[in-house]
Amino acid sequence: MVTALKRLLIGRPLKSTELGEQKLSKTKALAILSSDALSSVAYGPEQILIVLVTLGAAALWYSLPIAVGILILLIALILSYRQIIYAYPRGGGAYMVSRVNLGADFGLIAGGSLLVDYILTVAVSVSAGADAITSAFPILHDHKVAIAVAFVLLITLLNLRGITESASILAYPVYLFVFALIIMIGVGLFNISSGVVPAENHTSIGTPVAGISLFLLLKAFASGSSALTGVEAISNAIPNFRDPAPKNAAKTLVSMGLILAVLFSGITFLAYYYGITPSARETVVSQIASQTFGRNWMYYFIQGTTALILVFAANTGYSAFPLLAVNLARDKYLPRMLSNRGDRLVFSNGIVTLGVAAIILILIFKGNTEHLIPLYAVGVFIPFTLAQTGMMLKWLREKPANWVTKFIINTIGTFICFIVTMMFFITKLTQVWPVFIFLPIIIILFHQIRKHYEAVGEQLRIQEAASALPIQGNIIVLPVSGITTVVENSLNYAKSLSPDQIIAVYVGFDRENIIKLEEKWKKVHPDIRIVTLYSYYRSIIGPLSKFIDFVNKKANENHYNVTVIIPQFIPKKGWHYFLHNQSSLMIREFLLLRKNVVVSTVPFHLKK
Amino acid sequence: MVTALKRLLIGRPLKSTELGEQKLSKTKALAILSSDALSSVAYGPEQILIVLVTLGAAALWYSLPIAVGILILLIALILSYRQIIYAYPRGGGAYMVSRVNLGADFGLIAGGSLLVDYILTVAVSVSAGADAITSAFPILHDHKVAIAVAFVLLITLLNLRGITESASILAYPVYLFVFALIIMIGVGLFNISSGVVPAENHTSIGTPVAGISLFLLLKAFASGSSALTGVEAISNAIPNFRDPAPKNAAKTLVSMGLILAVLFSGITFLAYYYGITPSARETVVSQIASQTFGRNWMYYFIQGTTALILVFAANTGYSAFPLLAVNLARDKYLPRMLSNRGDRLVFSNGIVTLGVAAIILILIFKGNTEHLIPLYAVGVFIPFTLAQTGMMLKWLREKPANWVTKFIINTIGTFICFIVTMMFFITKLTQVWPVFIFLPIIIILFHQIRKHYEAVGEQLRIQEAASALPIQGNIIVLPVSGITTVVENSLNYAKSLSPDQIIAVYVGFDRENIIKLEEKWKKVHPDIRIVTLYSYYRSIIGPLSKFIDFVNKKANENHYNVTVIIPQFIPKKGWHYFLHNQSSLMIREFLLLRKNVVVSTVPFHLKK
Repeated sequence: MVTALKRLLIGRPLKSTELGEQKLSKTKALAILSSDALSSVAYGPEQILIVLVTLGAAALWYSLPIAVGILILLIALILSYRQIIYAYPRGGGAYMVSRVNLGADFGLIAGGSLLVDYILTVAVSVSAGADAITSAFPILHDHKVAIAVAFVLLITLLNLRGITESASILAYPVYLFVFALIIMIGVGLFNISSGVVPAENHTSIGTPVAGISLFLLLKAFASGSSALTGVEAISNAIPNFRDPAPKNAAKTLVSMGLILAVLFSGITFLAYYYGITPSARETVVSQIASQTFGRNWMYYFIQGTTALILVFAANTGYSAFPLLAVNLARDKYLPRMLSNRGDRLVFSNGIVTLGVAAIILILIFKGNTEHLIPLYAVGVFIPFTLAQTGMMLKWLREKPANWVTKFIINTIGTFICFIVTMMFFITKLTQVWPVFIFLPIIIILFHQIRKHYEAVGEQLRIQEAASALPIQGNIIVLPVSGITTVVENSLNYAKSLSPDQIIAVYVGFDRENIIKLEEKWKKVHPDIRIVTLYSYYRSIIGPLSKFIDFVNKKANENHYNVTVIIPQFIPKKGWHYFLHNQSSLMIREFLLLRKNVVVSTVPFHLKK
Repeated sequence: MVTALKRLLIGRPLKSTELGEQKLSKTKALAILSSDALSSVAYGPEQILIVLVTLGAAALWYSLPIAVGILILLIALILSYRQIIYAYPRGGGAYMVSRVNLGADFGLIAGGSLLVDYILTVAVSVSAGADAITSAFPILHDHKVAIAVAFVLLITLLNLRGITESASILAYPVYLFVFALIIMIGVGLFNISSGVVPAENHTSIGTPVAGISLFLLLKAFASGSSALTGVEAISNAIPNFRDPAPKNAAKTLVSMGLILAVLFSGITFLAYYYGITPSARETVVSQIASQTFGRNWMYYFIQGTTALILVFAANTGYSAFPLLAVNLARDKYLPRMLSNRGDRLVFSNGIVTLGVAAIILILIFKGNTEHLIPLYAVGVFIPFTLAQTGMMLKWLREKPANWVTKFIINTIGTFICFIVTMMFFITKLTQVWPVFIFLPIIIILFHQIRKHYEAVGEQLRIQEAASALPIQGNIIVLPVSGITTVVENSLNYAKSLSPDQIIAVYVGFDRENIIKLEEKWKKVHPDIRIVTLYSYYRSIIGPLSKFIDFVNKKANENHYNVTVIIPQFIPKKGWHYFLHNQSSLMIREFLLLRKNVVVSTVPFHLKK
């Protein structure tokens, strides 16, 4: 039944040989891997204006030079990640670059903050989507958290169905969004050039502004550069591309950069020219759309696709997180099971982990995840900075052809990313301080995990010198609860193993029963030794454990092995388990955990 | 560590031989078994007045004849339960009487409704206590549910510490409450006789009242008789008394009846004479106390002990529920584990079940359990009626000395209890309808449980005819994941069992690894046969299961047995379990549930 439900939800299992068919074309990859980056143009330009407007509407023209700065940063990032993709074609992005060029700990900082970041992406974008829905339908207001959780479950399920399937579905909202915004920008620019839009709405470039400072401009720049989060996703997910994977990934990255540049500069320019001031009641994109088209169907189309892409931005996390986790798991910093492919050939454990973590975040913050946004931006710019620094060192060390150009690109990138990161720490410390707590914790955890795996590996390696002494013989201990078919069954099995000794053990709670059982046993099985133990405290495990210690000690002296045979009822119906003391289960787990004995479970399948 | 915590909370384990010291003296038994019944005088008389006052203050004198009626019912119940105690000295009260005299299903109706009732008692009385506290300290208002849950945990823990210990602690509030009320009644009566209280406060007996009807009087009677709930508790808990248990229990029952009669009639009379009308703002007991003493320390003493006894009324449930459950479990209607004595010789599983169920009720109703009170009253009067009817039949059938007197007592009891039950159904159907749903469900469940135990018993009985064929030999299947010390260890064990055949099985996810392993295996263990299986769907269980089916079929044909040896890692630290695929655990459970093979677990204790 579980199997049937699983099939219904995620589809039939795929054979390992079908992996090739599960790779992404460039068009589909662009859709699922860029939804995070592209969706951020819906709020990035607005972030710049929010900082500038504190000095009055006259300061808004500064958005244009700031946008130019962000475009320069975007170009540096795209060129740099293009180099990373070719240099580390197995994916892992910033984690790999930092680990190889800067050392393990820097790799873990980059990897750890990106992992946390993808969880934040999912929680933040899904909550934003739930917000949009509850704003449109106030009757749903009390169910915001439930809606957000439902979205996470939906996207998790979609991703568990396999990459190609989720990409086919998610491509529509992404391309519709890009299409809608490009039309809006085109019509806007046409209106401006044809003089429909009055030029006096905006202050002209260069108007002097009282109180302007480098600090404020940098703050606006840092806020606006939150639009660049998600640019790194493709570098983590290279193995999902069709062959030649690195080449396809690089091309996709460049396309994404171009679209992002067009949308970002278009929106920033229209906002400036229309003289739009940010408002708590209406987003900047909504203001531009309504000035361009009026409140007609085109306006609602833009609003609708924007809401959709905000939700599906979460999907970028689902594409990048599992692959980044696989890279960390292969290096033994995360549990090995994260690198297992599930029924649909995706790394299901990573997908489920991401979904569960995002749901926990949503529940903790009751769906109000807006104040996690700065945390999330800083969590991207730390790995950005580390990756760029790592590439700088790589070029210095390897000095390939054209290394000076490459080095300059990464140096500019490092410089800008470092400043943005610092600006986040300086201006938003009240919101980003948790980084200083959870990053060290995560890194310690990574090291602990690796330490354990290395210790296990060492213990599993066969050492020539210490090859085990062969076992000389077997003693079988058979706890019995009376003389029933179950006991006969187990005894039958014990006899068939031809051991050197079988000892039946009975633990009784009152003397009378013990004597009765001893007498009966001697009549029925005169050839099998029975040991009876009186339990003062009505516990079976206590006296049994002491007896097994005693037998085990004797046995070990002679290189004998002790096997405890435990009969177990297997009822026909699940709820019947409640009707049987789970002593056999408890004894089994106790012995395995605490004693060095083999535990053989003899099932007794109840027929009704 | 778990053991240490357990000791701290509930004390050292007691030996079974210490059971005698855990029996209750009459004084202590009276305290813990009567807290429910006695606490109800705090609200019983008030319930009568609430019904009567709907016809105006002039109707309040009817409380006196109604109280006389309730006293008659009380006498009938006490005499009848005294007879039940002697007739069924092993406890079980209404359940036993009904089962023996009316048939199993009536017994189950009585037992089932009492079990549910004790859960309701705990939830209702503890919520009332939490209410009293949050009324006194409004700052705690938001934590009402938490306080109620904490009370349940406290009382559960106290009861897990053993009967004598909980009785020693709980005796104080009960006797203080009785003491305080008796002083109040005494002072009140003295004031009345010395003429301090003006006689014109109340209408004289016999004043005609417009609109009075038999129906209304019966309704008032039924409401007031909710003060008699808890009278049955002693009959369920006879085995907790010191020897001679039935005699001591009977004496305790009579003492309780006397105290209850004095308190009930005293309060009703004072309320009448003082001319008190029920009010939503102040309880009747509070009004009497403040008129008798004014708001001095005596008033607060009475209020305080009343609040305390309302909480500790829950304890009666804790004394009666586990013993009633033991009786049902002995008759196989409830899981057997309810009849196991815990570390402190109490029936801990029953105590914990009661606590958990009460907490669930409190959480579901968010601590507002007042409207469960009628449900709870009807749940007591159904078994009252059944028990009385059962006793009637018993006397008719057995005709012992004085059977006519005994028969008359029970006939009067049956008649009144039946009328009260009907009044609840007629006047409070909107609150008591759940009885018609949960009682049938519980009774069906009881039967299902018994059916299962009987089926199991039959399967465990050794039949001479069908004695099992001896096992001719053993085939050992050893799933391997490579060539490591763990595998060597298991193989070593397999060889020591001198089976007829050992088959190593490797399930691989890619052809290359399979070939590599086969070659390596043949070099290291040329004498052990290896079977390699290719898994298309990256599942180990699938191919392994098919292979075992195949081996099992062959083996069964020759009366051979199949043993699957599964190595299991035992990490040193709990969290390390997350770092290992739990495949060995899953394979073990799958094989035990689905296949007829013995599963031997060979532990491999990791040293770091």
